[in-house]
Amino acid sequence: MNKKFVYLFSEGNGAMRELLGGKGANLAEMTRLGMPVPQGFTITTEACFQYYANGETISSELEEAVYGYISKLEEITGKTFGGLENPLLVSVRSGAVDSMPGMMDTILNLGLNNQVVISFAEATGNPRFAYDSYRRFIQMYGDVVMEVPKKRFDALLEHMKEERGVSLDTELTADDLKTLVEQFQAVYKDALGVEFPQDPKLQLMGAIAAVFRSWYNPRAVSYRRMYGISADGGTAVNVQSMVFGNMGTDSGTGVAFSRNPSTGAKRIYGEFLTNAQGEDVVAGIRTPLPIEQLADVMPEIYDQLFLIGDKLERHYRDMQDMEFTIERGKLYMLQTRSGKRTVLSALKIAVDLVSEWLCTKDEALLKIDPKQLDNLLHPQFDAEALAAAKPISHGLAASPGAACGGIYFTAEDCKAAAAHGPTLLVRIETSPEDIEGMHASKGVLTARGGMTSHAAVVARGMGICCVSGCGELRIDEEAKTLTVGDHVFKEGDFLSLDGSTGYVYSGQMKTVPASVSGYFATIMEWADEVRTLKVRANADNPQDAAVARRFGAEGIGLARTEHMFFEPDRLPVVQEMILSTTVEQRERALEKLLPMQRADFEGIYETMQGHPVTIRLLDPPLHEFLPHQEEDLRALAKEMGLGYDALLASIDALKEVNPMMGHRGCRLSVTYPEIAAMQTRAIIEAAIRVKQAKGYDIVPEIMIPLISHVDELTYVKRIITKTADAVIAESGVALDYQVGTMIELPRAALTADELARESAFFSFGTNDLTQMTFGLSRDDAGKFLEQYYQKKILDFDPFSRLDQAGVGKLIETAVKLGRTARPELKLGLCGEHGGDARSVSFCHHVGLDYVSCSPYRVPIARLAAAQAAIRKRMGIIE
Amino acid sequence: MNKKFVYLFSEGNGAMRELLGGKGANLAEMTRLGMPVPQGFTITTEACFQYYANGETISSELEEAVYGYISKLEEITGKTFGGLENPLLVSVRSGAVDSMPGMMDTILNLGLNNQVVISFAEATGNPRFAYDSYRRFIQMYGDVVMEVPKKRFDALLEHMKEERGVSLDTELTADDLKTLVEQFQAVYKDALGVEFPQDPKLQLMGAIAAVFRSWYNPRAVSYRRMYGISADGGTAVNVQSMVFGNMGTDSGTGVAFSRNPSTGAKRIYGEFLTNAQGEDVVAGIRTPLPIEQLADVMPEIYDQLFLIGDKLERHYRDMQDMEFTIERGKLYMLQTRSGKRTVLSALKIAVDLVSEWLCTKDEALLKIDPKQLDNLLHPQFDAEALAAAKPISHGLAASPGAACGGIYFTAEDCKAAAAHGPTLLVRIETSPEDIEGMHASKGVLTARGGMTSHAAVVARGMGICCVSGCGELRIDEEAKTLTVGDHVFKEGDFLSLDGSTGYVYSGQMKTVPASVSGYFATIMEWADEVRTLKVRANADNPQDAAVARRFGAEGIGLARTEHMFFEPDRLPVVQEMILSTTVEQRERALEKLLPMQRADFEGIYETMQGHPVTIRLLDPPLHEFLPHQEEDLRALAKEMGLGYDALLASIDALKEVNPMMGHRGCRLSVTYPEIAAMQTRAIIEAAIRVKQAKGYDIVPEIMIPLISHVDELTYVKRIITKTADAVIAESGVALDYQVGTMIELPRAALTADELARESAFFSFGTNDLTQMTFGLSRDDAGKFLEQYYQKKILDFDPFSRLDQAGVGKLIETAVKLGRTARPELKLGLCGEHGGDARSVSFCHHVGLDYVSCSPYRVPIARLAAAQAAIRKRMGIIE
Repeated sequence: MNKKFVYLFSEGNGAMRELLGGKGANLAEMTRLGMPVPQGFTITTEACFQYYANGETISSELEEAVYGYISKLEEITGKTFGGLENPLLVSVRSGAVDSMPGMMDTILNLGLNNQVVISFAEATGNPRFAYDSYRRFIQMYGDVVMEVPKKRFDALLEHMKEERGVSLDTELTADDLKTLVEQFQAVYKDALGVEFPQDPKLQLMGAIAAVFRSWYNPRAVSYRRMYGISADGGTAVNVQSMVFGNMGTDSGTGVAFSRNPSTGAKRIYGEFLTNAQGEDVVAGIRTPLPIEQLADVMPEIYDQLFLIGDKLERHYRDMQDMEFTIERGKLYMLQTRSGKRTVLSALKIAVDLVSEWLCTKDEALLKIDPKQLDNLLHPQFDAEALAAAKPISHGLAASPGAACGGIYFTAEDCKAAAAHGPTLLVRIETSPEDIEGMHASKGVLTARGGMTSHAAVVARGMGICCVSGCGELRIDEEAKTLTVGDHVFKEGDFLSLDGSTGYVYSGQMKTVPASVSGYFATIMEWADEVRTLKVRANADNPQDAAVARRFGAEGIGLARTEHMFFEPDRLPVVQEMILSTTVEQRERALEKLLPMQRADFEGIYETMQGHPVTIRLLDPPLHEFLPHQEEDLRALAKEMGLGYDALLASIDALKEVNPMMGHRGCRLSVTYPEIAAMQTRAIIEAAIRVKQAKGYDIVPEIMIPLISHVDELTYVKRIITKTADAVIAESGVALDYQVGTMIELPRAALTADELARESAFFSFGTNDLTQMTFGLSRDDAGKFLEQYYQKKILDFDPFSRLDQAGVGKLIETAVKLGRTARPELKLGLCGEHGGDARSVSFCHHVGLDYVSCSPYRVPIARLAAAQAAIRKRMGIIE
Repeated sequence: MNKKFVYLFSEGNGAMRELLGGKGANLAEMTRLGMPVPQGFTITTEACFQYYANGETISSELEEAVYGYISKLEEITGKTFGGLENPLLVSVRSGAVDSMPGMMDTILNLGLNNQVVISFAEATGNPRFAYDSYRRFIQMYGDVVMEVPKKRFDALLEHMKEERGVSLDTELTADDLKTLVEQFQAVYKDALGVEFPQDPKLQLMGAIAAVFRSWYNPRAVSYRRMYGISADGGTAVNVQSMVFGNMGTDSGTGVAFSRNPSTGAKRIYGEFLTNAQGEDVVAGIRTPLPIEQLADVMPEIYDQLFLIGDKLERHYRDMQDMEFTIERGKLYMLQTRSGKRTVLSALKIAVDLVSEWLCTKDEALLKIDPKQLDNLLHPQFDAEALAAAKPISHGLAASPGAACGGIYFTAEDCKAAAAHGPTLLVRIETSPEDIEGMHASKGVLTARGGMTSHAAVVARGMGICCVSGCGELRIDEEAKTLTVGDHVFKEGDFLSLDGSTGYVYSGQMKTVPASVSGYFATIMEWADEVRTLKVRANADNPQDAAVARRFGAEGIGLARTEHMFFEPDRLPVVQEMILSTTVEQRERALEKLLPMQRADFEGIYETMQGHPVTIRLLDPPLHEFLPHQEEDLRALAKEMGLGYDALLASIDALKEVNPMMGHRGCRLSVTYPEIAAMQTRAIIEAAIRVKQAKGYDIVPEIMIPLISHVDELTYVKRIITKTADAVIAESGVALDYQVGTMIELPRAALTADELARESAFFSFGTNDLTQMTFGLSRDDAGKFLEQYYQKKILDFDPFSRLDQAGVGKLIETAVKLGRTARPELKLGLCGEHGGDARSVSFCHHVGLDYVSCSPYRVPIARLAAAQAAIRKRMGIIE
């Protein structure tokens, strides 16, 4: 039996998302609900999978099925595909399971050819419109399907406009456009050696294949990686009969949200243009009108749209983002989906939906993308600085948040400069090609485009700040200058953008940290009610610890003692310690470090007020602490009373071929037990002092890094317990402490039962564990990973998102072995994955006690942990 | 109930080796067999374990038990411990499960004190002997138990000899020795602040603790690592009543082997000294007499010894190494054990024992240490060169084989120089402190000592060549010179040693490769009959492949294509390929490499005559192929038509922080598919040519390195199959080929089911797998691993012997997952572990199809594979 690869909209429904893609399922659902949808059919994601499995060819089986459905569509519409009377024109659009707006390809007006266009002109009574549609189709088909450079068509269009002495496309006549159609077909033939296809069925097959192929275009690959979408899904293809918003003043097109996607206000929101096609709205070429004005222009349409929006929101129990077209006074719904929204509106909408009895708290929590919270967790402009500042310009507040950075005029420049400092992307208007440059930037500033322009939509999705449509800016992308009035800003000059107000300031404005309040606080409260996974933070000093507490961290999961070593007043002592040639010399240097480290720990304990603190012993290779510049080296040699050459020789002896797998972690404690002893003393003495002074019940958790073998652990643990017990005995103050280990080497995970017998806790160091499991150096992978994405080998960065199939398997093994050997074993994770929602979810499912992440990601982890608990309870498999 | 920690010799037996150690079990067995053994008792290895578990203290429980057994020993011997009449003196000796001759501590004559020595002098009627025994005891106790520097005692002895104007110890009088006893006691008190202990019970406890502690002395740790003995076992302690071989001419001591340990001849073999103690024989201070002469001196004793030797050999079904003492005309057996033997004698003895019906072929195979075969697999001197050469000196042929090397006069110098070239250790005589220097050397040359001297015994055990007792050499260890006649050799000068003849030659003599013949061939034949694990070799060129075939390799498991790249005529082309900036440029360079690689593969296929050949695609990071010296760089820049700075910049861009985890292996094929395509073409074209020319049925096995993810594998495999299929189609010759993957990253092992679906075979690359599993860079580990051994954290080098608990677990996982996904999957191992007997055994047990090792280790692997099969069949757990 053949698989069913094609579904009429009337055959599907909203639950068939996996098979029909998001757009297809929702078109089917709207059809089912009796809403006005131009009819069509959806080719399934399974067909896309088959296309790739067959070496990128469309099977004859699928081809036959599509032709069959074209016939059905002809019946439904009463039009004929390729027919000279009442011709059926269709759009061919992608539609993946997860929405990827603008990332893949679309072909409109398909079905036109040299004959059909004549009857189409007659049927519409509008030859200008017919030939314009045809020339657009040829251009789109040539560009998207056959990869004829778009600019070859554009050049002809520009040339025609010049020749006619007009500046707008709309000023060209039907005859001009007819000529262009001929010229476009000539370009097509010149580029490809064949005529532009006249058979609509061939056109259709070409377009379908192009949409399938666009699943792997670089933009889509990059978008998926950015949003953590798997490449396995593939895209469905929607073939839909065309409706036209550009057939006169009784026509139009627009986008509407059932609530305000920027503020969350419960009021229909959107933009429309009369006598226009959808792309005109999105591209930001003409400035659209607010949706409220539709009530004046076409009151009945407005009411109908309002009712549909309300119904869809209640039906989907979420804010909807809808596209519509009005063709000669009749409303058609082209799309609905859960609307992308700013994090502020996401929080408000979630809380409002609960108070409106539209959904439960659990459902509300699931509506918020934890990653988006990131946006709220970055600094805002300092209120005083803001009051004192005079903006240089004002645009649309397209995506909230504050950002300062050097300005760059191309995506490439932005990407390159972002490695060295914060950047802002400045463009006349953005296009999908800019997406990686936007991702690398703190904010986006455009001269053109509205609230739903490409720049605005994408920036909101990414959670970066955006000021769009800032019309008074003169941007010269060639010269790389931005001019406001008579002030010229050059590449690299600093600007400050306030995406919440739309103001632009020159220079770098002072920012203040974010806080959790209002709707955000409510959501966090709900999240804390349901989650079972605890959230700690990685913090190396009292300042970071304070931020962590403010964001709700329940402890510190990783305090890196080496970060303290880099402080300028300590580095010389650390260097002295490293370059010591005898144990005695080293102990003298350590003695100087002891009070400094102790003071660090005291500050952290005081801030954490008795919440648990895990402190990791010195981890990095010692050569990291030594200078590289000759002048620094000479200064150090002088200070150490060493010859310059002797110093160089010492430093040379410390160099390593593969430092990541070299003399670091617990290996330092094995060769220099006195370092571990000093650090233990500082940890315990600080705890005793703070306990005595403040009365907090502190139980320091001392963590040993880079353990591969149980005998390393017992050796280092012996140093720790010997020192700690002696310090406690000296002090006469009772103090409990725990000794545990990082699990960051595969061998540690594989022998976790042995390690558990000697450890009070495990903390999975997934940064190193990922490096070792893949045999992949994070510092070097950048050079070739890009090719891995392009070549479909990896679809996410395993250093950002935990690789469950490999690294996750080791974690599962370690959890099982560890808990069997020691049922009360405490389990945590302290890699960067602790702030990634999917990885947090994995941690919940695998049974960890806590995750520890950057202080600024604590709320993300709290929400992700709640979502994981809810999904598990609901039986949703991730 | 208390554990039984002590056994009389009469309570034990030979099967109790684990508990009583080898020496203790055999003393008990000889007692059981009614042989003349000085009675005593053994403190178990469990007591040693308890000693360490108790923080290096002897429990009062053990102390009580020992005193009880002293009472029993008093009853048996009729002597009194510490008694003034007929005092009981004892020896305290270590005895581990695995024999570790000379590695641990021994104390003799224990029980003497200032009173007892008087009655002992009376009882023996020999005050000189009594005081000599006492001063030896004080010296040994001070040195071994209390760590008073031995040289402080030696200095006093030398001083006394000078004062008395004598040159031998034996020329000192009883009074001289009595004075020395007083002086030694004064040194003891001066060093330790307490009197020399007079209570024999305290002496005994001190000695027992010292023997326990000696389990971890550096020599023992180093010996265990060298022979792969686990540190877990601990040592037993044997307390035995003393007998004295130095009580006159009717007394003596010696060592006897039931067969010749050097040649394997079936004839009693050994040495003895009259009026001497055991240490005099072993230390090589007096040159002992051949055992045959005992028949003249003490014919009855000789007959008795001969019968005992024969009985013990039949009883243990193996050649025995026995120590005996004759006290006033009565023979006492002090030890028997399976004798260490040269590999040649091991092979002959094994074959002989089978033909004498003393054991089965399987048992015979188990008697040979596979590692020892190494000795036979190194070159011998070229016969012609040997005939033409004039030796400069002649000593004892103490350990066979030929060796050339620079001469060094201390173990440290040898170790240091061995990194740069072959070395010979030259010493007046060796001692246990020299063991690491010997290990680092190709051979040992001594001026003093017999066939059972330290140098001879240890060299045979290590399988390195030794010429001992070369009396005409004048060795000045201070000046670092060796003088023969009037020729002076300095440190670093080359000598050649023939350990099979005892001749010493100056300079470097030509050597010829070893071959498998005679007894060796018989044993290999037997091994091949029982083993099921196949053995392949790692070989990169036809020469190595020919050696591999000669040693019985059944195929090539790893041909590294990059080794071919380093050939001087190719390197410039390789560099051109690497520094190409366009695909076209790179393809031009690859085109030049193609015929070279194809010729390499043709040569290998021809040599292997249809046996399987696995070829690995390019693996190392490209920067390895680039020059480092400025002049080479300038030459290359010129050749490439590049600016010097541009070249430096290109090379700089290739540099990596952690090259081991960087851009190498299949990652090169992902970024430069054209390299993989060229190599595939070379592999397939060569196979087709050789198949056509010779008719061999060649099925090339193309192996992809460093796979971590199945999608890497499918990507590279697609390049390979596309190229290979095209080449085969072009040629019109039918050819099968296979594509497989290395499993050398943890993630590959963890996802082996996915990989198996795309692989015809797996080859475990255990070098890299060990690095990644431990997170340990082989290039950097040297700096700290020594401390790991000293601190009891690791007891073997995981790069030499497979870590079964960690790396082995990954292999087991991969085998299971792989075979489940593809039952016919071919499994092999191609790390250096393939030539290590224990690791080979693991491979057998885990169900691999083959191991692949260096050509010179193929016979080792064949024997190890046979032993594993036999042990498995016999139910012996390893």
